[in-house]
Amino acid sequence: MKIALDAMGGDRAPSETVQGAVLAARDPEILRMAGGDLAILLVGRREDVEREFARQSPPVPKERLTLVDAREVIEMGDSPAQAVKQKKGSSIVRCAELVRDRQADASVSAGNSGAAMAAALMRCGRLPGVMRPAIITAIPSLSGVTVLLDAGGNVDCKAAHLLQFALMGDVFAREVLRQKDPRVGLLSIGEEETKGNDLVFAAQALLKRSPLNYIGNVEGNDVVNGNCDVVVCDGFVGNVTLKAVEGVADLVFKMIKKELSSNLFTLVGGLLAAPAFRRFKKSIDYQEYGAAPLLGIDGVFMIGHGKANALTIKNAIRAAARCVSSDMNKVVTENIARFGQNPLEKGAPGGNPEGPETP
Amino acid sequence: MKIALDAMGGDRAPSETVQGAVLAARDPEILRMAGGDLAILLVGRREDVEREFARQSPPVPKERLTLVDAREVIEMGDSPAQAVKQKKGSSIVRCAELVRDRQADASVSAGNSGAAMAAALMRCGRLPGVMRPAIITAIPSLSGVTVLLDAGGNVDCKAAHLLQFALMGDVFAREVLRQKDPRVGLLSIGEEETKGNDLVFAAQALLKRSPLNYIGNVEGNDVVNGNCDVVVCDGFVGNVTLKAVEGVADLVFKMIKKELSSNLFTLVGGLLAAPAFRRFKKSIDYQEYGAAPLLGIDGVFMIGHGKANALTIKNAIRAAARCVSSDMNKVVTENIARFGQNPLEKGAPGGNPEGPETP
Repeated sequence: MKIALDAMGGDRAPSETVQGAVLAARDPEILRMAGGDLAILLVGRREDVEREFARQSPPVPKERLTLVDAREVIEMGDSPAQAVKQKKGSSIVRCAELVRDRQADASVSAGNSGAAMAAALMRCGRLPGVMRPAIITAIPSLSGVTVLLDAGGNVDCKAAHLLQFALMGDVFAREVLRQKDPRVGLLSIGEEETKGNDLVFAAQALLKRSPLNYIGNVEGNDVVNGNCDVVVCDGFVGNVTLKAVEGVADLVFKMIKKELSSNLFTLVGGLLAAPAFRRFKKSIDYQEYGAAPLLGIDGVFMIGHGKANALTIKNAIRAAARCVSSDMNKVVTENIARFGQNPLEKGAPGGNPEGPETP
Repeated sequence: MKIALDAMGGDRAPSETVQGAVLAARDPEILRMAGGDLAILLVGRREDVEREFARQSPPVPKERLTLVDAREVIEMGDSPAQAVKQKKGSSIVRCAELVRDRQADASVSAGNSGAAMAAALMRCGRLPGVMRPAIITAIPSLSGVTVLLDAGGNVDCKAAHLLQFALMGDVFAREVLRQKDPRVGLLSIGEEETKGNDLVFAAQALLKRSPLNYIGNVEGNDVVNGNCDVVVCDGFVGNVTLKAVEGVADLVFKMIKKELSSNLFTLVGGLLAAPAFRRFKKSIDYQEYGAAPLLGIDGVFMIGHGKANALTIKNAIRAAARCVSSDMNKVVTENIARFGQNPLEKGAPGGNPEGPETP
């Protein structure tokens, strides 16, 4: 298994990316998924990556790390589509090309996420039948993990897009997360079928006709309470929801910290309880999840957080290995062909996405 | 000051509503806002309310509590508009009529919130120039409180509606919460002006031309981090965001509780720290906030949570008193007339809400 890593991507590259690659190269689970045959292709400026190599102790496992020289770097502030067109020699573009040319099975980047998505789309294209690729994100809940999509790629969606997101999210939950019969919910403002906006009403009609384990509308709190496995929404709502979730978790920690320091008893209590807090913080830490897969692309692409550290990079590589070792893209293609044909096209089984069944 | 209370509204009515009225009638702050002249009109079935009166100890301050008989009750599951039309003698409808007839200055209901909104709109109508009433909700942050609107009334909005929400939210923050020069943000998927959906781009153009302290796009986490005072969005996004915020706060408590009980040290720590947790939980508890005001109606209406207890009801009455004693509706009317005219109408200063400035 070969995984391309954008060594220049992220606020803390290349030091954290190289360290992350080294951690991944030593990780037994990743090695197992790769059937013992793992190569991490570090894509970036040769001299920068080599300098980081030299700093590692113990020495890096060079048999599993390969350097691919890429002279250009797409910066965080660059306009995505433009940067991909103009910086053809950049690490992000090269990663996508390695996947396109089957020289890598997956690509991981914590750089400019818009550019990473654009490069994936422009170099590798969509899987057959997929209208729009979507970002899927894992959110921890009491009972495990809920995935949400789209998490930011597509702001103005039609019902047919949401149907495809649901089909792709279902495959991800089954094939990669190994969930059985995942419950698929449509994010709305009430559980009742009569609650929603025009998009929700149109999507309900399509989802009800699908073979998914569709449980109907779900609400904002169902993203974290374990009542649903796959939450479907447009990328605007998904992005706002995810950032609100992160914001509240942050706020709660700061408020509790403030309250704990208010007197000696609570301060001592807080110190004794600290390991529990740390465990909890780890369980909701996005660094633990590594990166969000981009679904619907002909290739495996992981979009990492700009603040990624070495651990995040390692986890993103592990997540990529999981996607590669599963049948994800094969099953996505089959299911989209059977149940998610573009209902915008005349004669397709899905009918008009804003069609007659919409109230 | 006369405040009508839907004594039959809420899952725990009439016992908690009557107790809440009694607490409010004894509350010095509410009495002060009422200039010493406070009457709470308990609207509901006479025999039910009198039975609850008899249970109170010490005896209720009857000089401040008046019973208004209403024989019908709108249930939580009733269809809002239908219920308002059919149950003309219900407590929710009677509350709205008391406000319409100037026999009450405000109405508070923790009953069927759709019906409470419908009754307000159908009996009292909108303030001049207001296109759509909006629910405004207070969310605690590190630095105080952020208000968000619309929180669920209007799912499919146009830019002109968001402009009016912003104008109304600004007045609420100034006149009721006494915030100076509140920062108004437009909820989107990135701070940059280029990030958003079609609605956001159209609303940006209108907000930039307004006299508001408009700080541009804000993100999901800005709802709780204190960076913004008034967050504006459509009711779909607002409702999903609020429920996600509530859900995460809930989840965090459950997860921390689980982690704390994992060993003796953390358990003892958790016990010592418990008062800090309780204070924190109180600070984010919606029961503390009482109810959400419905802005843009010719009258003061507070929409309470169905799970309201006596404390919630008291706080809702206090919030209603604050709205009444402020110049809220007068200033809303003035500002809507000056800066928020319906730009859908030709010749209005706002221009076309999806107009030429939209990318």
